[in-house]
Amino acid sequence: MSNKPVYAIVGLGLLGGSYAKGLHDAGYHVIGIARRQETIDYALANNFITEGSIQPSDIHKADIVILCLYPKVMIQWIQEHKHDFKPGAIVSDIAGVKRNVVKPIQYILKDVDAEFISTHPMAGKEVSGIEHADPSIFRQANFIIVPTVDNSEKAINAMMDVADILKFHHISLLSIDEHDRMIGFLSQLTHVIAVSLMNTHDHDKLVDYTGDSFRDLTRIAKINEDMWSELFLFNKDILLEEIEAFEASLDTFKQALKNDDEETMKHLFIQSTNRRKKFDK
Amino acid sequence: MSNKPVYAIVGLGLLGGSYAKGLHDAGYHVIGIARRQETIDYALANNFITEGSIQPSDIHKADIVILCLYPKVMIQWIQEHKHDFKPGAIVSDIAGVKRNVVKPIQYILKDVDAEFISTHPMAGKEVSGIEHADPSIFRQANFIIVPTVDNSEKAINAMMDVADILKFHHISLLSIDEHDRMIGFLSQLTHVIAVSLMNTHDHDKLVDYTGDSFRDLTRIAKINEDMWSELFLFNKDILLEEIEAFEASLDTFKQALKNDDEETMKHLFIQSTNRRKKFDK
Repeated sequence: MSNKPVYAIVGLGLLGGSYAKGLHDAGYHVIGIARRQETIDYALANNFITEGSIQPSDIHKADIVILCLYPKVMIQWIQEHKHDFKPGAIVSDIAGVKRNVVKPIQYILKDVDAEFISTHPMAGKEVSGIEHADPSIFRQANFIIVPTVDNSEKAINAMMDVADILKFHHISLLSIDEHDRMIGFLSQLTHVIAVSLMNTHDHDKLVDYTGDSFRDLTRIAKINEDMWSELFLFNKDILLEEIEAFEASLDTFKQALKNDDEETMKHLFIQSTNRRKKFDK
Repeated sequence: MSNKPVYAIVGLGLLGGSYAKGLHDAGYHVIGIARRQETIDYALANNFITEGSIQPSDIHKADIVILCLYPKVMIQWIQEHKHDFKPGAIVSDIAGVKRNVVKPIQYILKDVDAEFISTHPMAGKEVSGIEHADPSIFRQANFIIVPTVDNSEKAINAMMDVADILKFHHISLLSIDEHDRMIGFLSQLTHVIAVSLMNTHDHDKLVDYTGDSFRDLTRIAKINEDMWSELFLFNKDILLEEIEAFEASLDTFKQALKNDDEETMKHLFIQSTNRRKKFDK
């Protein structure tokens, strides 16, 4: 690979668009691949990409291909187009779950000369589409690389470079299981709670009285139903375990309240206060 | 009462201090009553009050007395000092619960010439104490007046004036039951959820991966254990009902996930998204 790899971004939505623009702004040759010509036209007109195509086979020109698609579609896409990768290409993703994604893809690619290295940029917005793409969303975000025993140093370094070019705040390496458990708790469970709280009542008439507490707890209840139901089902067993761990914690509090057990309630408040302090930025 | 009533603020903590400073800054005569002379000295030195005293009987000089104490202590305080109120005085509070507070106090005051009108300023901070007092916390906040059939127009108007002087964003009138149900859901349940989520695991090693979702959902898990356990126990039955309503909503989601019922999951996401949109500022 030359010093300046050629990138292909497959799927120009919110994240794909942000990747493309960030890499292009930094002076890299970026090939944008999308299903619709309008998306390519928009990306070219707004200087997100160097060239664009609705032909998947155009990935053959890229040293590094980053797939910015939903997991299910991505696995299928790689299956269909695996013979179009340039020999020696590094292939990556942005999927929010890993256990049922990384191994299947590495298996699909085992008979072609392309290496799949999985990553998860922990960034996003409540809105989707290339028109909201903006590489500045990466500035405060974590970039997680999820290597397996099948990955090379070269591929890991290529992803470190991507994180560096896109100015991610922090880079970490996690195993597949560590990743999915962390995501199950920190991201998926929090979304389940926000959605369930929002769905508890029809609260129209409460809007006038709402303070920051309720708004903070339900901000992420605005959620893309297609993406999140797919991500949840991909991580179903871990997420169910996390929901049950939270239910047990909630029940401990409920029993204390029910029994007028002020001492236990205070203990739980002190514990949560001390734990939360470590999360202050 | 003259055009310019004299105010007494009993209890100069975060909220009492903010009330005192806001009223004093607006040119009113404010008597500060606290237990410790150091608090009075601080309040005088920082122009929070016109005069200060550690003698509860000094409330006899005030037309309007606002008790900024925890509910249990407040009820006891009124019982002990009810004969010190100036004849015709208006007495108010800032308590976060009302059912087991307002009626008992009105009962205590039935044989003295003083009228209790309850209010709830929906403002606060994660920290306590007069040194954090700041009347600007009221600018974005709701001021709720909770009148009963025993209250006069004059007392309600006196509280409207207070909200006006302190520049609250919005004034509403609610019945005792409406107030406690609204608070049980919007404020108390959200705190129970935040605390329970924070207590689900010991998350030390997750700090590096935490994004805004988890931080948003746990911000209010830093909580004053004495005040909140008291408020929760005062509103126990309603809060238990709200916890159970939330548990049912969470269980609906869990069952959908367990059964791979993508349609129901999507329906729940769409519902929460639509409901949350109404709460956008």
